[in-house]
Amino acid sequence: MEEKGISQVVIGRLPRYFRYLGELKDEGIERISSQDLSELMKVTASQIRQDFNNFGGFGQQGYGYNVEYLYNEIGKILGLDRRHNFIIIGAGNLGQALGNYINFERRGFIFKGMFDCNPQLAGKEIRGVKVMSMENLELFLRENDIDIAVLTIPKAGAVEVAEKLVQNGVRAIWNFAHVDLNVPKGIQVENVHLSDSLMKLSYNISRYMKEQENI
Amino acid sequence: MEEKGISQVVIGRLPRYFRYLGELKDEGIERISSQDLSELMKVTASQIRQDFNNFGGFGQQGYGYNVEYLYNEIGKILGLDRRHNFIIIGAGNLGQALGNYINFERRGFIFKGMFDCNPQLAGKEIRGVKVMSMENLELFLRENDIDIAVLTIPKAGAVEVAEKLVQNGVRAIWNFAHVDLNVPKGIQVENVHLSDSLMKLSYNISRYMKEQENI
Repeated sequence: MEEKGISQVVIGRLPRYFRYLGELKDEGIERISSQDLSELMKVTASQIRQDFNNFGGFGQQGYGYNVEYLYNEIGKILGLDRRHNFIIIGAGNLGQALGNYINFERRGFIFKGMFDCNPQLAGKEIRGVKVMSMENLELFLRENDIDIAVLTIPKAGAVEVAEKLVQNGVRAIWNFAHVDLNVPKGIQVENVHLSDSLMKLSYNISRYMKEQENI
Repeated sequence: MEEKGISQVVIGRLPRYFRYLGELKDEGIERISSQDLSELMKVTASQIRQDFNNFGGFGQQGYGYNVEYLYNEIGKILGLDRRHNFIIIGAGNLGQALGNYINFERRGFIFKGMFDCNPQLAGKEIRGVKVMSMENLELFLRENDIDIAVLTIPKAGAVEVAEKLVQNGVRAIWNFAHVDLNVPKGIQVENVHLSDSLMKLSYNISRYMKEQENI
């Protein structure tokens, strides 16, 4: 994957900082040193400083970080100060789970529509959003300002659906289908391949067992 | 995170190789060169060779890789030649989605039990597995050989439940709760923080928009 400027590895760590800072903020904590943040998050203080230096630092040496300021700045970097409308394609259990997750709303991700090719699901309501037929997808995209499409469908139809989404102005796909999508430059894709994650867990179980056998 | 030997980044790429090789195998393809695999997977041939060299190579120079052999070997490295029994804690939409996912079974992950603290869900059946009360969890773990617990509960109870799981012999947790678990050494945890993934997508949308504005 090509990257400009800041690496995706650093970007991948920002949501975790954001989560911890949000919790500190909720607990009423106003300042935190990189050392204390390091102990809390179990990463080195030097990594924290290096990560933050990518964005100009944030900190005042010796005074630690202002929690709320840092939380808001990282939120802005993550684009959470903008509102993102999203739709879900695939109204199965996973699609419903994501549609029902109200925390997305708190972060500015607004659930606008849900589509499924199964006629039995048509009309079903998830948090006030009715499941629509896939035939309505293009018209809906033309009439609504949708940034993100969540793909929770089997891999068989995913590539074709992704093409249709992109043709109709969707600029980002959160892909849970177990296939790599081939989208034009400028279209953002974030893959959540659940099986891959489970296999990684399985590898780590095996490795640990082998280590124990060798002791 | 501490790693022994092979880095988690390399391990993280193995499931994707496994997926592509499985598809090639299903298409009846017997051999593939690292160059062709590279084009298919959109990674460099040198990365493929480097990754495979961590496990002793696999390939015959000039003849390419034997697809089925490579598929089986990577499967073994991933521990997919062993059977893993798993339970799901949290029978909401996400838990149900994972319980219903039959592909896990094909990979040797066997769905054995499901637990929820909501009495209204008790007795509900997901693929022949009845949802049990959390009160039955410890007894169930003592009487069954469970490797993996999937945590699909809100973050509030997750740390406490994880402790109980570990005390009763669970050696791996697939954690969807939006909190970092603090488990003893030797217990494997794989986190799927869905909000983090969505924020990364949001970052990439913002970055792309800013790039476009600056052109």
